[in-house]
Amino acid sequence: MCGTDGCLVKCSSVPCATPENDMKDTSTTINLDHGDPTMYESYWRKMGNKCDITFNGDDSLSYFANGKSLCWFLESKLEEQIKRLHSVVENAIVDDYYIVVGTGSSQLMQAALYALSPTDQLEPISVVSATPFYSSYPEVTDFVKSGLHKWAGDARTFEKNGPFIEFITSPNNPDGVVREPVVNGNQGKLIYDLAYYWPQYTAITSPANHDVMLFTISKCTGHAGSRIGWALVKDKEVARKMTKFMEISTIGVSKEAQLRAAKILEVISERCLDPNMENFFEYSQSLMTDRWQRLRQVVMANGLFVLQKYPLQYCLFTKDFCESHPAFAWLICKGGEEEDCEKLLKEHKIHTRSGRRFGSDSRSVRISMLSRGEDFNIFLQRLMAIQVPTNGN
Amino acid sequence: MCGTDGCLVKCSSVPCATPENDMKDTSTTINLDHGDPTMYESYWRKMGNKCDITFNGDDSLSYFANGKSLCWFLESKLEEQIKRLHSVVENAIVDDYYIVVGTGSSQLMQAALYALSPTDQLEPISVVSATPFYSSYPEVTDFVKSGLHKWAGDARTFEKNGPFIEFITSPNNPDGVVREPVVNGNQGKLIYDLAYYWPQYTAITSPANHDVMLFTISKCTGHAGSRIGWALVKDKEVARKMTKFMEISTIGVSKEAQLRAAKILEVISERCLDPNMENFFEYSQSLMTDRWQRLRQVVMANGLFVLQKYPLQYCLFTKDFCESHPAFAWLICKGGEEEDCEKLLKEHKIHTRSGRRFGSDSRSVRISMLSRGEDFNIFLQRLMAIQVPTNGN
Repeated sequence: MCGTDGCLVKCSSVPCATPENDMKDTSTTINLDHGDPTMYESYWRKMGNKCDITFNGDDSLSYFANGKSLCWFLESKLEEQIKRLHSVVENAIVDDYYIVVGTGSSQLMQAALYALSPTDQLEPISVVSATPFYSSYPEVTDFVKSGLHKWAGDARTFEKNGPFIEFITSPNNPDGVVREPVVNGNQGKLIYDLAYYWPQYTAITSPANHDVMLFTISKCTGHAGSRIGWALVKDKEVARKMTKFMEISTIGVSKEAQLRAAKILEVISERCLDPNMENFFEYSQSLMTDRWQRLRQVVMANGLFVLQKYPLQYCLFTKDFCESHPAFAWLICKGGEEEDCEKLLKEHKIHTRSGRRFGSDSRSVRISMLSRGEDFNIFLQRLMAIQVPTNGN
Repeated sequence: MCGTDGCLVKCSSVPCATPENDMKDTSTTINLDHGDPTMYESYWRKMGNKCDITFNGDDSLSYFANGKSLCWFLESKLEEQIKRLHSVVENAIVDDYYIVVGTGSSQLMQAALYALSPTDQLEPISVVSATPFYSSYPEVTDFVKSGLHKWAGDARTFEKNGPFIEFITSPNNPDGVVREPVVNGNQGKLIYDLAYYWPQYTAITSPANHDVMLFTISKCTGHAGSRIGWALVKDKEVARKMTKFMEISTIGVSKEAQLRAAKILEVISERCLDPNMENFFEYSQSLMTDRWQRLRQVVMANGLFVLQKYPLQYCLFTKDFCESHPAFAWLICKGGEEEDCEKLLKEHKIHTRSGRRFGSDSRSVRISMLSRGEDFNIFLQRLMAIQVPTNGN
């Protein structure tokens, strides 16, 4: 299942230059800076009206949700479908975990920092993550100059004694590598950002069972516009404090977004369990496999860049050995005269995010692999053209 | 229109004791602590399917909205309907204002503090509001111990030189009074919280045109579960910084909630403009007028409490003289032996919010006037019963 068989899009190694692409080629920069998951639109379009949800004028007026969850604004339908999907995919333990819903996982990162920061210390707690780390962590930690927590950079070089919080993103954003904590020290609190721990990106090797685990629908199903994330939290007091953060910050999370997310997750689980239906993760994995194959072919052909390699691992969900196909490509210039990879690609009308933003250097960039097919094709065309700088690109 | 004529609910001065009410009477505390606006369900139920909105599986996957607003995640339909409604109601100027959408107005309060706080000062800027102030202001300002801003209490006693930010809530939460800034000083930045500046609560005396004005759909239409607020901002740089805050905090605002809010506001505007249709604000104003009349009758009858009085003012929207009918009653114990009003009401199974939470004292409480009709009736029954403490309540 992890090879090219079942590939649902045209697997040409050289993307075709349609007149439309040609027009875009000369005029518009392709934006692969954000991980905007519009790639998934094709699957949801095929679903027709199976995921339709209608809201009546008198639905969901109250601040309160209908459930009995510790997280008082969590819709019980969403709670149920989150638990069900994790059980189907086997990527996380849900029994005896508290679920806290957030306006995307960004808000849950802040909620987790709030809940895990000691309140009895004079100094803010140090927050670290191993380089290359998700570019938002420093900003999310420091943007209001909190006295509770303070960004302290690369976890690998962190040597301060005392309490700290480490973000572990696995598979990692930006480079797709499966990660473990790196700081030695028994006073650490760990936040596992598992946004990409889904079968289309990586092998599900075991159900995760960490103290605090963050997920987001944006990277699971592609519904980034909904702004729905969730945390699985082992400790009741931590879950209570995270809920309190959400209460002060936004008095809960949109009920429409929660109920629609519940519907989307329900459809995914149902189709995973029925072998006669088209499975979302298989479909998405095929798309990603094809994109990565084509990208590797272009990178090999022009010889200017290096891509991260990933080991084959057995996946509990697909019941097969799989290579990772991360949501982002972490592309590194081989060097030479041109060492600012973001600048080089920008000149060829490809907007990416410099490695500097991830605590790394300017030779690397992060490139979204989740754009619409048309944009991905133009991206490969342009990347290919960098090999021959005199051809007008 | 502001009298009892047109009253759409039963205007009995003594609420009826149904068997259901009697059952609730002895067993359940009525929660009037939050301003949960479930009162509005009755109007939206009458609208049938006129406000229905359906989301298809492939709608709104992207983080980005379809408009060209400075606030890059603001749906253009919502922007259009916000501007239209303010023009119809005449409660705020919208021309030449930037609109920033938020996950409720709580998030916009934080965004405004972030945007208005100087970044070149060693000390956090002082944030004040006149007592009694909205109970969330201190918490929202200080909950992550920000180095940008710090709660400094009652604006009336604030005497520190230098820059400050003042929240002006008008009509005020908790006491419904129309307010102006109180701090003298030319280094002040003002945030106008106009959540209750709608015709069902108060006379619209002129279109507001302040630098930063906050609104929320929760108290305008009753859709608190959607978590949609908006700011009207005069200065481009302030709007840009508020948008940046929202980007870091939650990467925007749920598209489902925005699009549904747009639909709801559209229906309200259309019906305001058509004299043959039932106007949302007239309907709601009638409900509020009736509730306030019945509350004043009970308060007068039992003689233990005092309620705030409000002047008659000419309303541009209703084109008539109106008294205010605030979303909260600010009830003050006349004193004597029992001076903890929250405790007294709690003993009679009415959960309210103590005046202490608003920077005032324990003789006062805030009581939501926006509950469902059944709960409001039980509340009046129980309040009436306090007059005779020996009757078993």
